[in-house]
Amino acid sequence: MDHHTPPFDPSGFRRALGMFATGVTIVTARAGDGTPVGMTANSFNSVSLDPPMVLWSLAKSARSLPVFHAAEHWNVHILANEQNDLANRFARAGEDKFAGLALETALADAPLLAGCSARFQCRTVFRYEGGDHIIFVGEVIGFDRSEAAPLLYVSGEYALATRLSQPVATAANASNDAPAPFTEELLGYLLGRAHYQFMWGFQRTLGELGLSHGEFFVLSLLAVRAGLDAAEIAAHTAYTGIAADAGLLETMCARGLLVANPGPATRYAPSPAGQAASRQVLAAAYAVEAALVEQLGAREAAGLRNLLKHLIRASDPGLPMLWAANA
Amino acid sequence: MDHHTPPFDPSGFRRALGMFATGVTIVTARAGDGTPVGMTANSFNSVSLDPPMVLWSLAKSARSLPVFHAAEHWNVHILANEQNDLANRFARAGEDKFAGLALETALADAPLLAGCSARFQCRTVFRYEGGDHIIFVGEVIGFDRSEAAPLLYVSGEYALATRLSQPVATAANASNDAPAPFTEELLGYLLGRAHYQFMWGFQRTLGELGLSHGEFFVLSLLAVRAGLDAAEIAAHTAYTGIAADAGLLETMCARGLLVANPGPATRYAPSPAGQAASRQVLAAAYAVEAALVEQLGAREAAGLRNLLKHLIRASDPGLPMLWAANA
Repeated sequence: MDHHTPPFDPSGFRRALGMFATGVTIVTARAGDGTPVGMTANSFNSVSLDPPMVLWSLAKSARSLPVFHAAEHWNVHILANEQNDLANRFARAGEDKFAGLALETALADAPLLAGCSARFQCRTVFRYEGGDHIIFVGEVIGFDRSEAAPLLYVSGEYALATRLSQPVATAANASNDAPAPFTEELLGYLLGRAHYQFMWGFQRTLGELGLSHGEFFVLSLLAVRAGLDAAEIAAHTAYTGIAADAGLLETMCARGLLVANPGPATRYAPSPAGQAASRQVLAAAYAVEAALVEQLGAREAAGLRNLLKHLIRASDPGLPMLWAANA
Repeated sequence: MDHHTPPFDPSGFRRALGMFATGVTIVTARAGDGTPVGMTANSFNSVSLDPPMVLWSLAKSARSLPVFHAAEHWNVHILANEQNDLANRFARAGEDKFAGLALETALADAPLLAGCSARFQCRTVFRYEGGDHIIFVGEVIGFDRSEAAPLLYVSGEYALATRLSQPVATAANASNDAPAPFTEELLGYLLGRAHYQFMWGFQRTLGELGLSHGEFFVLSLLAVRAGLDAAEIAAHTAYTGIAADAGLLETMCARGLLVANPGPATRYAPSPAGQAASRQVLAAAYAVEAALVEQLGAREAAGLRNLLKHLIRASDPGLPMLWAANA
C-alpha cells in the first residue's frame, strides 16, 4: 500500500478514487433558449427511497454549470455496456453532442436518451456546496429500466461486470489438518478442471466414435486447415503435450479417418468418414457449450471468453495462426 | 422498458437504481465512549479534487446515526473482491462487527481496516439533508490504495469487473474462402488452448522428471489427498479422459513415485521421491501462474478464476470433493 497524507498529488488521489467502481451516466437538461445540454458523469448516487431522491455532482468550472443551475429538471441515464461511444461523445466538450440522437418523450423539458439500462427523471430539490463541485440532489419524478447490461468504469477504463462465484470445493478446507500444497485458486487447476469437464460433456461421443483426444485434436485442426504435413501438424499440437506424431497419423490413415496426399512432404486431410466424425463431435461440443451458456448466463459467458483470450495472448508460445489463410 | 411515474413502488425504484454499478465500502467511526462502529455502504462518491472531498449517505433510521453525527472523523474503506464476507458482516446489525479484526493505525480516532483496495480518512465538513438519508461530505486527510481488485455491487449481487480483450486470432479470418467449422468463440477451444498453454509453461519440468500428464495428475491428487485406493483415484481423474488405472499406479510404484499400503483395498501415497517431484512441478506451475498474472493484471486473473468457478460448478459431473476432509 502507498500511504498519502496532505499535501498529496491529485493524480494519486484520482487513482485511489478510481478503485471505487461506478456505472456511467449521462445527465441532461435544457437551457432557457431550448438548447439541450448533457455530460457524462460517474458521480451519481442514490440518496433516499422515500421520497425518492438521487444526487450527482458537477464541477464549478463546467461550461454547462449555469444551465444545470437554472434548470428545474434534469434526467440521469445509466448507460448500457454497448453505449461506451455515447459516453465518450458526452465526455468531450465542444461538439453537438445530440446530433443524430432520437430523443424520447420526457415528463418535463430535459432531453431523454434511448437504449439505456435505466433512467431517472428528476426535479432539483437541493444544490449543495462541495469544494470544487456543486452537488445536485433531485427528486425522482419518473424512472424506467431495461435488461441491458450496464457499462462500468473502473480505474479509468470501461469494464464489464460478472457475478461473484461461490467457491468450487473449499467448503471443507478448514477441516484439513495440514494445508494443501495447492488450492482451487491455482489458475492451472481451474483451467484444467474446466477444460476436462467441458470435454467430458462430449466424451461419450468420442467414445462411440472410438476417437482418442489426440485423434480428435488432429481432426479438429485439419477441419480448419486441411493439407498440413506432419511437421505442421506437430507445430500446431505439440503444446498440448499429446503426441500427434507420424505414428498417430499413420494409424488414422489406416483407420480411414485421414487421407495422405504424397509429395515432397506428405500432406494430410480428413477423409469423408473423418469429416463426418469431426462434425459429429463438433455438434456435441456445441451442445455442451449451449447448455453451459444457458446455466452461466450470456454475460458471464462473454466475460469468460474475454478473459480466456487475455490469458491465451499472454501465454502464447508462438503457435501458428489456426485461422490464418494458407500462405 | 418498464416506465414508472409516482406513486411508484419502492422495489421497482430499487431495481432501477441497482442498474448503476458501484463499489462496496465500509464506513467506520468511533463513539464518544470509544466503541467502534461501522457499516457497509455503496452510496459513496467522489465530490471534489481541490480540496479533496468525498461523500456518502446514511439512513436517518440507522442505529449508528448518532455516532456518525457526533463523529469528527470517519474512514471509508473500498473493499477488495475477497472481502465480500466482511461486506456481509458489516451489512448486518447486532453483532460485534469488529471482533477478531486487526485495526491499523489511523490519523484520527476512526477505526482503520486492513486488506482494502483503497481507503480514505476523512474529517466531516458538511452534513446535508437528503430525504430519508443524511449526506455526509468529508475532507480527505489521508488515503492509500493497493493493487487488490475491488468488489462490485450490481443489481443486488456482488460482482467483479474486467477490461475488454483484443481477439486471439481472428485477424486473418476474413481471408479464408470457406467459413471455418468452428471459431475462437467456441468456449471449448478457448478452454483447451488456455489450459494446454498453461501446462506447456511447465512441460519442461515434467519432461526433466520423466512424468506423463497422467502421472502428474495422480501425484497432484495424492499431494492433496494421500491414501486413496485405485477406485477413488479413478473417480477423481476419470473425467480428464486420461487413464489413471491400476497399470499406471503399478508403474508409478515400480518407478518409486508411489508407495502402496496393502489392506482390504490397496491405498496409495506419494513416496519421498514422488513428493519431491510433485513439489518441483508445483513450483514450476506457480512460476507460470505468477508470470501470467503479472501480464494479465491481478484484476483480470481474479475475474478469470471467478468465471472458471462458475463454469466448473455448471459443468461438474459430480466429482468427489478434492479438498474435503477424509470421512
